[in-house]
Amino acid sequence: MSLPNLHGFTVSELSSDHVLLLKAAARRARLNALTMISAANSGHPGGAFSSMELFLAVYGVADLTPQNCDDFDRDYVVVSHGHTSAGVYAALAEWGFFDPAEATAHFRRCGSPYQGHVERDVKGVDWGTGNLGQGLSAGVGFALAQRARGHEGRVFVLMGDGGQVKGQLAEARRMAVKEKLTGLIALIDWNNIQISGTLDEVMPANLKALWEADGWEVVDCDGHCFRGLYAALKAAGTKGKPTVLFCRTVMGHEGGVMEGTCEYHGKALQGEAYEQVVRSLGGDPDLLKAALERRKGELPVGRHVKLLTPSLNLGTPFDYEGSKSDNRGAFGKALADVGRLNHSQPGRTPLLVFDCDLAPSVMTGEFKKACPEGFIQCGIQEHSTATASGAAAAGGVVSLWAGFGVFGLDEVYNQQRLNDINLAGNKTVLTHVGLDVGEDGKTHQCIDYVGLIRNTFGWKLVVPADPNQTDRATRWMLETPGCICLAMGRSKVPVLTLSSGGSAFGGGYRFEYGKATKLRPGKDGTIFALGSMAQKALDAEAILARQGLDVAVWSVSCPLVVDKEALNEACASGVILTVEDHNVNSGMGSILALELARRSKAVKLRLMGVKQYGESGAASEVYAAMGLDPQGIANAFTGLVDA
Amino acid sequence: MSLPNLHGFTVSELSSDHVLLLKAAARRARLNALTMISAANSGHPGGAFSSMELFLAVYGVADLTPQNCDDFDRDYVVVSHGHTSAGVYAALAEWGFFDPAEATAHFRRCGSPYQGHVERDVKGVDWGTGNLGQGLSAGVGFALAQRARGHEGRVFVLMGDGGQVKGQLAEARRMAVKEKLTGLIALIDWNNIQISGTLDEVMPANLKALWEADGWEVVDCDGHCFRGLYAALKAAGTKGKPTVLFCRTVMGHEGGVMEGTCEYHGKALQGEAYEQVVRSLGGDPDLLKAALERRKGELPVGRHVKLLTPSLNLGTPFDYEGSKSDNRGAFGKALADVGRLNHSQPGRTPLLVFDCDLAPSVMTGEFKKACPEGFIQCGIQEHSTATASGAAAAGGVVSLWAGFGVFGLDEVYNQQRLNDINLAGNKTVLTHVGLDVGEDGKTHQCIDYVGLIRNTFGWKLVVPADPNQTDRATRWMLETPGCICLAMGRSKVPVLTLSSGGSAFGGGYRFEYGKATKLRPGKDGTIFALGSMAQKALDAEAILARQGLDVAVWSVSCPLVVDKEALNEACASGVILTVEDHNVNSGMGSILALELARRSKAVKLRLMGVKQYGESGAASEVYAAMGLDPQGIANAFTGLVDA
Repeated sequence: MSLPNLHGFTVSELSSDHVLLLKAAARRARLNALTMISAANSGHPGGAFSSMELFLAVYGVADLTPQNCDDFDRDYVVVSHGHTSAGVYAALAEWGFFDPAEATAHFRRCGSPYQGHVERDVKGVDWGTGNLGQGLSAGVGFALAQRARGHEGRVFVLMGDGGQVKGQLAEARRMAVKEKLTGLIALIDWNNIQISGTLDEVMPANLKALWEADGWEVVDCDGHCFRGLYAALKAAGTKGKPTVLFCRTVMGHEGGVMEGTCEYHGKALQGEAYEQVVRSLGGDPDLLKAALERRKGELPVGRHVKLLTPSLNLGTPFDYEGSKSDNRGAFGKALADVGRLNHSQPGRTPLLVFDCDLAPSVMTGEFKKACPEGFIQCGIQEHSTATASGAAAAGGVVSLWAGFGVFGLDEVYNQQRLNDINLAGNKTVLTHVGLDVGEDGKTHQCIDYVGLIRNTFGWKLVVPADPNQTDRATRWMLETPGCICLAMGRSKVPVLTLSSGGSAFGGGYRFEYGKATKLRPGKDGTIFALGSMAQKALDAEAILARQGLDVAVWSVSCPLVVDKEALNEACASGVILTVEDHNVNSGMGSILALELARRSKAVKLRLMGVKQYGESGAASEVYAAMGLDPQGIANAFTGLVDA
Repeated sequence: MSLPNLHGFTVSELSSDHVLLLKAAARRARLNALTMISAANSGHPGGAFSSMELFLAVYGVADLTPQNCDDFDRDYVVVSHGHTSAGVYAALAEWGFFDPAEATAHFRRCGSPYQGHVERDVKGVDWGTGNLGQGLSAGVGFALAQRARGHEGRVFVLMGDGGQVKGQLAEARRMAVKEKLTGLIALIDWNNIQISGTLDEVMPANLKALWEADGWEVVDCDGHCFRGLYAALKAAGTKGKPTVLFCRTVMGHEGGVMEGTCEYHGKALQGEAYEQVVRSLGGDPDLLKAALERRKGELPVGRHVKLLTPSLNLGTPFDYEGSKSDNRGAFGKALADVGRLNHSQPGRTPLLVFDCDLAPSVMTGEFKKACPEGFIQCGIQEHSTATASGAAAAGGVVSLWAGFGVFGLDEVYNQQRLNDINLAGNKTVLTHVGLDVGEDGKTHQCIDYVGLIRNTFGWKLVVPADPNQTDRATRWMLETPGCICLAMGRSKVPVLTLSSGGSAFGGGYRFEYGKATKLRPGKDGTIFALGSMAQKALDAEAILARQGLDVAVWSVSCPLVVDKEALNEACASGVILTVEDHNVNSGMGSILALELARRSKAVKLRLMGVKQYGESGAASEVYAAMGLDPQGIANAFTGLVDA
């Protein structure tokens, strides 16, 4: 009894036969969802039952199949209320994505792809969720990627109602309307029950008015009626706006004791309670026994999430010489150069650049001029931008967001963490990091970016030292798969030179992730300097040389990775000073210290960095106040040698 | 020519004389704002001029004076668009908060309280801002504190228009309406210019409709007309709703070349351009010379921000014995106990507990029952809750928010950072930290809380090891000034015992911040275990004892602080193993390693922790999969000894 082919709305309306088949599928899926939760003795049956018709309808009409789900050019489905995972898996199984008995047996088992909240390890799941209110932003990202790739498709976003008040969701609504994403269809499982009561009891909100005010087409429908759902989904987008369906549902629908209560929001049914619901659904309580038996067996293997490998012409790096330039400017020029070279070129991966009203400061204006369709202005809506830029990358474009450090990372740390978990592969460029933010003061000083990103397992972090390295790291980043963050300050910095007098990062230098660069050799000790602190370290080295000390200076641009070769050499010198305009407790120095401690290596070590929130003032004064000027560094070094 | 006393709306309407005096003040204040920006050669004149009448009107009518600004029971003023600081300082000076020439001379000078974005170092500034969209949440927090303290006052929140689309602001709107904060008055500087263009060009939003949909009284007025502003402010709140004034303004108003353009959003005027504006305002260009001269002199001293020292009856700690309890439960019981003992008691500091629809899981339900007015249900709106709970603490109540780790910290890291910068002194309780989140999986595993909080300079972090310590740490936290985070897992854990067999943290044990507890002595090496990993370490110790190894076990509950005494003893043992269910790169072990490296102390060291995003499964399986079970710990220890 297979389901009708509805992908891409193959029929004008559902026939009675269609409805019968879908209803039978819903019954089976409820049985499976219920059983998998009981087998795991953990999960969220109430919401899974409430959303079941939405899941089946959407996976039915979406151009998303077991065959095309690993491609980029197709429809996307985001389930924002990821705790209803049992329902999602059961529905996907009905549409042939995998064997229903496999999901039923291995739900929430350690090592299984059928995890507690939906993850991309499962075919048909396009975005791992569970932290509420983020799904619509992901939907916006996928829709932007579709458009950039020239694919006319749809993106479906399913949501619970409790999370409707999350601010990020409102940001996403506005992005969708501004970008005219008419293929974006949102569905709200509107059962009016959340953990602490009804929506009005927990947090009153005039939801329809809010969606309307933000410019969406708002449609009301019965969330348990397949015919109505099909019609509403088919009509969506025809009025030139993105559409939201307020789907009236009942919590725990068709779940007997679970109906209309939040008691089974996050609780499994066992024993007689389980069997009663199974029987009322016309099922066989032995389903659970079979699942528990199979659960003892081998773990299923999840799908391998495909990372985008961009196809880009990276052009020729620019060389900066002599006079000072800022790293921001070098980033902006390299980005625009790559943009120009690849814009609308056949076979090249599209490039999207996101902005939150800071283009003149983060230097993405030149790219905007060169590639206007590739530039997405998001307004001051960082949370939604972070998630959308992540999903766009997962949707098959090179996706880059540039913002100030405190906005592109501190404000959206969790969104960037979830991008990492989702293997999104987005790029984030942070300007105004460290103390180098001009007079903006402590609220704007991003002195924690190393300390934040080191908490993730996937993100790479690059802090280029000068404009030449910035140019090369920018081009490298654009074509390298995975989540990558490029961080830089605001000021102009000199082009760095080697002992030979030649440029350290110009000409044929090629950026290599994880490699430190020796700017000066020396045997009396070693200074490791993060990013643009390198020039200050070189100036300190000159002071120390006048005192007869022969000090090595290494430029570190990848603080998350300890360059073993550099560290070995430094250890031989016996004295190590680390210099960074970052919180001294959590930055590059502390990562290096950890490696030293692990090696049980006793060397004279001192970490220089930021020890309190910084002041508001001219950069040079702010650095000097923290002792992070050349003389301060030189003094710290001699103090360490004498210690 | 002093300004009229308008505090608390002393007149029914402004007279012509009032208006003349206020207009003269506005002229002077514009001159000072312009001059301070030119003296610093940095700042935001456009917005300062646009908002000037709003600043003067609000500081005029608010019950906020140089005399009462350090008290709790008064009106509050939050300037959310903190980059307009020059305007704020100039307006405050007109109302007598300090000498205008002082602010004019020392604006944005390193070490001066007159910082780039408004900070609480300046009298009259109630909340440090600059990261946009957060001010209304702070206003909600202050209004909640006023109500809890029984003070009928007003809270004014001034905002720019570009930040109106930040999602957090919508969350704050709903909190204000739900809590019926009719004394809350918002003012929008509606000049329709932001960095990248007009509001419609950057991010279209039907702002008035959104405020109305969220239940606010929306009033339109001329933002440069004192009489209209006074009338609108006086009428605010009379309709039983919080009120927002859409104040029509002109960017750079009365600033000559600055009018109606965003060119001077963030740019100082110099030379002839400066002088022209000064002359058009009837001022003397020598103002700048005087400011620059004074700028060379001594730095002014900022105010000392008063931290709340709560007055609470902390009651008697509960003793847990034998059978397992969960730390969440112990926290909830202690909180409810202190709530009951102090609720409505004269002389006691009010206690507010915030929830984001998780009370049954974070165990604040018992407090809610005991002290219903002290319980604030915020719905799934974490960003606004984080800021509001911070501002409530700054407003003179003991303010506590309990949530899952990923919501109370990861999702709102920046809000908690800004709470720290503001010396807010709020308390945050994180449950479901570490791998101990049940089957929720990686999106819900908060394995970075140590790594996040260590980036701040003020937050204290406590990770109690068992229910006894949780009870005592909870009571300690509630009466200790400053920002404090208490973090715990989900599972039941045994009550910890000492070698003597007695309870480690029961009876007369007193929690002391920064102190580790030796659960077992030992000479063959030392295990440091974070929080509830202590019992697993003890079980490992028993395994090792059977192998003839005499291993010390320390319980660490304050991972940000290295207990020197404990570390000395451990160093003497020569072998150190750290155990935590936290990212191994950024947690307790890495902090300890940093201290070891700084001491140049060579010991055998190994860090055990989380090395990749965790799986979804039963806690015991998830721990075992990571090697973080007793056998795994014992194996790691023997491996280290043999290394």
